[in-house]
Amino acid sequence: MSTSEIEKPAKNDKSADSHERSVWVGFDLGGTKMLAAVYDAEFQLLGKKRKPTKGHEGSEAGIERVHGLIAKALEDADVSVDQIIGIGIGVPGPLDLVDGIVLDTPNLGWKDVPIRQQLEDKFGCPAVLMNDVDAGVYGETRFGAARGARCTVGLFPGTGIGGGCVIDGEIFRGSRLSCFEVGHMRVVPDGPRCGCGRRGCLEAVASRLSISAQAAAAAYRGQAPFLKKAEGTDLSEIRSAALAASIKGGDKVVEDIVRAAARHLGTAAGSLVNLLNPDVILLGGGLVEALPELYSEVVIGAAQKRAMACYRDTFEVKVASLGDYASVQGAAAWAQHTLEKTKG
Amino acid sequence: MSTSEIEKPAKNDKSADSHERSVWVGFDLGGTKMLAAVYDAEFQLLGKKRKPTKGHEGSEAGIERVHGLIAKALEDADVSVDQIIGIGIGVPGPLDLVDGIVLDTPNLGWKDVPIRQQLEDKFGCPAVLMNDVDAGVYGETRFGAARGARCTVGLFPGTGIGGGCVIDGEIFRGSRLSCFEVGHMRVVPDGPRCGCGRRGCLEAVASRLSISAQAAAAAYRGQAPFLKKAEGTDLSEIRSAALAASIKGGDKVVEDIVRAAARHLGTAAGSLVNLLNPDVILLGGGLVEALPELYSEVVIGAAQKRAMACYRDTFEVKVASLGDYASVQGAAAWAQHTLEKTKG
Repeated sequence: MSTSEIEKPAKNDKSADSHERSVWVGFDLGGTKMLAAVYDAEFQLLGKKRKPTKGHEGSEAGIERVHGLIAKALEDADVSVDQIIGIGIGVPGPLDLVDGIVLDTPNLGWKDVPIRQQLEDKFGCPAVLMNDVDAGVYGETRFGAARGARCTVGLFPGTGIGGGCVIDGEIFRGSRLSCFEVGHMRVVPDGPRCGCGRRGCLEAVASRLSISAQAAAAAYRGQAPFLKKAEGTDLSEIRSAALAASIKGGDKVVEDIVRAAARHLGTAAGSLVNLLNPDVILLGGGLVEALPELYSEVVIGAAQKRAMACYRDTFEVKVASLGDYASVQGAAAWAQHTLEKTKG
Repeated sequence: MSTSEIEKPAKNDKSADSHERSVWVGFDLGGTKMLAAVYDAEFQLLGKKRKPTKGHEGSEAGIERVHGLIAKALEDADVSVDQIIGIGIGVPGPLDLVDGIVLDTPNLGWKDVPIRQQLEDKFGCPAVLMNDVDAGVYGETRFGAARGARCTVGLFPGTGIGGGCVIDGEIFRGSRLSCFEVGHMRVVPDGPRCGCGRRGCLEAVASRLSISAQAAAAAYRGQAPFLKKAEGTDLSEIRSAALAASIKGGDKVVEDIVRAAARHLGTAAGSLVNLLNPDVILLGGGLVEALPELYSEVVIGAAQKRAMACYRDTFEVKVASLGDYASVQGAAAWAQHTLEKTKG
């Protein structure tokens, strides 16, 4: 560190009254909760705020909640609106990335919301819309478990299966829309029905939801006594922590169900290794983070089996390390990356 | 056109004795034949030469043949070695693109050949190594059927299934090796055995070779009388033209076999639409080019069925239009693109 850096005022000096633009805002708009965070130019966290999304109240009320939460996070960071350089926001797709529009989010029930423009009008600074999983994969590649990877392929099994790819510091994107819908690659012809209406999607055999459904059936049949006692057979209660506890509690059948799902995920990861030659396969989401060893072991095994010989030793499997902050920090940093590239 | 351009000497003026560097060389090193071509700065063809590869003679003899063929193509174009700006060469993978090494080509039987350095030493100009299918997809995106596409995904069923992706003028590449091995994505768990040793690869159910094998069996069973009369049951004789003739001659079973393979290809194309959101799915290879309407129709149908609703009208299916020249012109133009970017 140079001596001149020591003379700078501390980054977190909340009494600083300079109103020059110096902070980035990251926002994660999830199906159940939303998180806003404020970062300094080195992406150190200055303040944050979280609340429920309440998507069912409609997009107009929702946008008000987004605006209000950003204001609260700014307050928490003790910075003013005119200090924001830019805002990055991650939203579940599909999105029109060219015009910054939320086309349709089944989880929120919103349609055709010009969210980028709305943020820019409200806060008087540029905003960048992106897919929430892209934000997470970008955040982990820049600050977390995949730091230093040249090409990261992220797979996040949850209610669905999110995916994203970061290559040479850029998020892979196709012609216009957000993409990398790994969950809707067909992996089993005439396989189980998926939420999207088709059959045999990866999501239908490897999402946390498909695992929970099979575990609930096992509990009902009396094959998962620990789970049945702890949570009953209501699918809504059988989430990541309950599944991890059931396995730790000795429910062998639940472990088999998770292993089979992880094998499907690993085989798909191996297909993606043949397709995209990433150096890191990044796994994330609640269940993976609750069972990191089991997931890593099964996914590595299945991916190595599927990968062609020449790709076999070219990739590592890593588990996401930033938790909920991957997406907000990723969105803020992507806003910086995008806006500085546009200027340059 | 400005008047000053009219005063320039004609591009093809073979009597020009200027030795300034002004031409690009493209080379396609295939399993059975090799093609060298010389282009001017606008990628107009100045000269070309073709001969058999004879990969079995080993890589040393092979490199001599490559050098010799380039010399012949320069002669055909009436330009001298010191006029070459750069050379682009497309080779079947796997390749180490960072160091310009042919790691292993089953079709040629070559291993660890530093072909880029060998070309640079021989011709005293920079050379660029790339995958042959990447070269073809790049060529079609820059000069052919996919011209103007922002994101092209190319699928070329032949003995195997080649694939490539060009996005925003760049070839998609992973961390180090050539990739986009669409043929080795798993599409049928426990499906037919593939040449790579695994089961259920796309290549095992949708390559021209898998079609030929099934058609030969149909001929043997007497279900493809036209084919049997024309070619017998020797797989080596049942190539693209024979399959197209068999269908035109009324062999319904052969048409069904091709349609089923094309449906697998189309479903995989649809999965890739969900993954990568290309605006063009480019089909190529001998069989596709012999049966363009049948392939386009079946692939569009299956891809639309697999694509998620929001992607359904975002892509077109096109058939390659440059034939053998896609790869050589693509390799020459990619050399230009790469070398000019390095300079910039």
